[in-house]
Amino acid sequence: MSRRKLFGLGAAGVAAVGAGAVATRSLLEEPVARAASTSDPVPFYGEHQAGIVTPAQDRLHFVAFDVITDKRAELVELLQEWTAAAARLTQGKDAGTFGAIGGSPEAAPDDTGEALGLPASGLTLTIGFGPSLFDDRFGLASRRPAALADLPKFPGEQLVPEISGGDICVQACAHDPQVAVHAIRNLARIGFGKVSVKWSQLGFGRTSSTSRAQSTPRNLMGFKDGTNNMKLEDAQLLRDHLWASGNDWMAGGTYMVTRKIRMTIETWDRTSLSEQEAIFGRDKGAGAPLGRKAEFDTPDFNATGPDGQPYIKADAHVRLAHPSHNGNAHLLRRGYNYVDGSDGLGRLDAGLFFIAYQRDPRTAFVPVQTNLAKHDALNEYIKHVSSGLFACPPGVRDAGDYWGRTLFA
Amino acid sequence: MSRRKLFGLGAAGVAAVGAGAVATRSLLEEPVARAASTSDPVPFYGEHQAGIVTPAQDRLHFVAFDVITDKRAELVELLQEWTAAAARLTQGKDAGTFGAIGGSPEAAPDDTGEALGLPASGLTLTIGFGPSLFDDRFGLASRRPAALADLPKFPGEQLVPEISGGDICVQACAHDPQVAVHAIRNLARIGFGKVSVKWSQLGFGRTSSTSRAQSTPRNLMGFKDGTNNMKLEDAQLLRDHLWASGNDWMAGGTYMVTRKIRMTIETWDRTSLSEQEAIFGRDKGAGAPLGRKAEFDTPDFNATGPDGQPYIKADAHVRLAHPSHNGNAHLLRRGYNYVDGSDGLGRLDAGLFFIAYQRDPRTAFVPVQTNLAKHDALNEYIKHVSSGLFACPPGVRDAGDYWGRTLFA
Ligand code: HEM
Ligand code: HEM
Repeated sequence: MSRRKLFGLGAAGVAAVGAGAVATRSLLEEPVARAASTSDPVPFYGEHQAGIVTPAQDRLHFVAFDVITDKRAELVELLQEWTAAAARLTQGKDAGTFGAIGGSPEAAPDDTGEALGLPASGLTLTIGFGPSLFDDRFGLASRRPAALADLPKFPGEQLVPEISGGDICVQACAHDPQVAVHAIRNLARIGFGKVSVKWSQLGFGRTSSTSRAQSTPRNLMGFKDGTNNMKLEDAQLLRDHLWASGNDWMAGGTYMVTRKIRMTIETWDRTSLSEQEAIFGRDKGAGAPLGRKAEFDTPDFNATGPDGQPYIKADAHVRLAHPSHNGNAHLLRRGYNYVDGSDGLGRLDAGLFFIAYQRDPRTAFVPVQTNLAKHDALNEYIKHVSSGLFACPPGVRDAGDYWGRTLFA
Repeated sequence: MSRRKLFGLGAAGVAAVGAGAVATRSLLEEPVARAASTSDPVPFYGEHQAGIVTPAQDRLHFVAFDVITDKRAELVELLQEWTAAAARLTQGKDAGTFGAIGGSPEAAPDDTGEALGLPASGLTLTIGFGPSLFDDRFGLASRRPAALADLPKFPGEQLVPEISGGDICVQACAHDPQVAVHAIRNLARIGFGKVSVKWSQLGFGRTSSTSRAQSTPRNLMGFKDGTNNMKLEDAQLLRDHLWASGNDWMAGGTYMVTRKIRMTIETWDRTSLSEQEAIFGRDKGAGAPLGRKAEFDTPDFNATGPDGQPYIKADAHVRLAHPSHNGNAHLLRRGYNYVDGSDGLGRLDAGLFFIAYQRDPRTAFVPVQTNLAKHDALNEYIKHVSSGLFACPPGVRDAGDYWGRTLFA
């Protein structure tokens, strides 16, 4: 009996699987398309920021800064310098024009050098402004968008303030982690004295596909993640649910929510396959909705199995998160797996660094998470430990434009 | 003036570089050979363990376990189970024969599933036994090798006990981090109740080449790292300085030293190019020894520049670390860059996770580090925060053999 067959049975939720079902992973399915060899640059200028619908790259370095200058002009100047650096970095160039070898040997190089010789590697840099930036320091209070409303407290969350929030965030995604780290590090260097790193997070593997051209990666619970994600190709959905419209400074922008979600993987790993599949409402092999066969089959939330119970249980993650149970809420998920070493209690400190984009968190992330926090069977195995909310301005149009111009100009 | 030219000048230590020296990184040099698309398996069985002279893969997940059972038989059984799992995992198979889809849906899967569909990705798993394993719990005290002598205290080190030492370590290296993480996680799962994770470390980019077929990567100070490393092709050096000989249980094995070395990169980034190059004794562009032209030119420690001073200063890292200044000590370095988020003080928590292999640390790591700890100009910018020492047994010969058999049998 081949593993591929087991997948089918699993999907039908009635697997009674004999022993001896041995297969190598590589024979199982098409290998996940890892664009790790993708060295090409992603265009920086455009109507929207890159790094949102850009097919999710493999690696993440995410940073949240606090602004430590109280001078608006200095902040604007920094945003301009950052934009110039980002335009260069994303094209595989050094952060500054003199590079790591410097203008003069007596000066500090204006690039730190660890990406010398590496290609652009699909690097994108995406900026967001947190609610705290709109306090009274920079005269922005009146410009805070309604959609940037503080997230409510969700039941069960155990947020650590030191790794939550931040005035400004930058998401660096690339196919080479050294390139992502290099970019964030050079932005931090340029911002020295004006911003300080509040927290930062490395993600080692994408957990979502954001394009139908990508195969679906797996999260650390071993399940395909991103199957029913909003994708690059869903033009109408993106217009209605991703990009902010209107005439204000956010037109063409979007809102980002981040949640660092620790998994208690040791407990998860001792849970039976059928229980794991019931929790998500999808099978583990193919990623098909329970009661259906293939990954991209539409879930049928009403279908019941031979026992008269719904294939997809009332507390299953995909039922609770589905647009049909959340007033048609749609998110573009773009998260990453993380491992932060161990926790001092003998366990790996690992989970999902969840990132989601949407036109308005009040009608997207908030209702979905409210639903999940209350009812999701998955809650037994996860803990939200950090939270971030950011307004991501529209794209930078050309070399004369800069990150946040519509906000500050 | 091209950047390539600047490198040459830099190497001569007399660069007086004009403005306008703009070049894209990708035009500079051959791109660093990242075998990220290398999906093939590395053979598991052999005279020596893989993951030592194996050309350094791009990603690391390193774990140190404490043994929590006090039964020798249970420990041996675990080593046998681990060996069987490692033989499978390194060949791109699931950790157990039933995989993530399980034997029975009512049982926990015997693989966690997040590597389903991923190729072997050059995964190697390398085990080592720490000094603490040779206490009186398992009757191994008399078998502790003399070369596994506790490291001395080095001036300036600030070791954190919680992330140092450990009874057993496993180094997982692969071209895909998800594959390395998956392997360690499954070993931890198999060891549940017998071992507990003491600490673990992710490394995102190799900082050494261990083969002449590899180009030299850069560390987070922006310098090429691994140029004058002991390499796969140096058969005589490996025999004399890497592999343990004799008739005891360690014959064919080697000793591993790990040091987590935090860099104060913000200070480093404000240091001038000439100062940076003086600290290492090599130029930043090409990686040539100061006073010479090309990366692999032999350093001349006696050569002096126009000012009558040696090109390579008395306190330069490569002078102090060179075999000629340490009684012909040779190390095989196999470290990784790390970023662990930020430190709560506005800075990235980043540096080098140093790993070195050698026949006898007492005549290799110890004299070199003694020299460096006392005199190295680099010390101003680094801090050793964790330390590990492990005896890595010989390779597993075949399916009937297991990790540590020569020690326990
Ligand atoms: C560690 C935490 C989480 C894990 C492991 C996880 C995993 C998954 C998996 C395996 C799927 C099914 C495949 C897919 O369509 O992508 C899924 C779907 C989904 N998840 Fe999560 N998720 C987590 C947290 C969240 C959170 C916090 C939200 C938002 C508040 C969320 C929103 C969604 C949505 C909207 C779907 C698609 C449902 C559908 O339309 O079918 N997830 N998730
Ligand atoms: C963050 C800490 C360190 C950094 C950034 C660093 C960086 C470098 C660089 C750039 C080189 C020159 C290129 C090469 O030959 O690889 C080098 C050489 C070397 N380093 Fe380090 N190193 C560090 C720590 C150490 C430590 C702790 C040891 C051993 C105790 C060590 C031993 C060596 C040796 C043996 C060489 C080769 C010297 C030669 O034969 O030319 N390094 N290192």
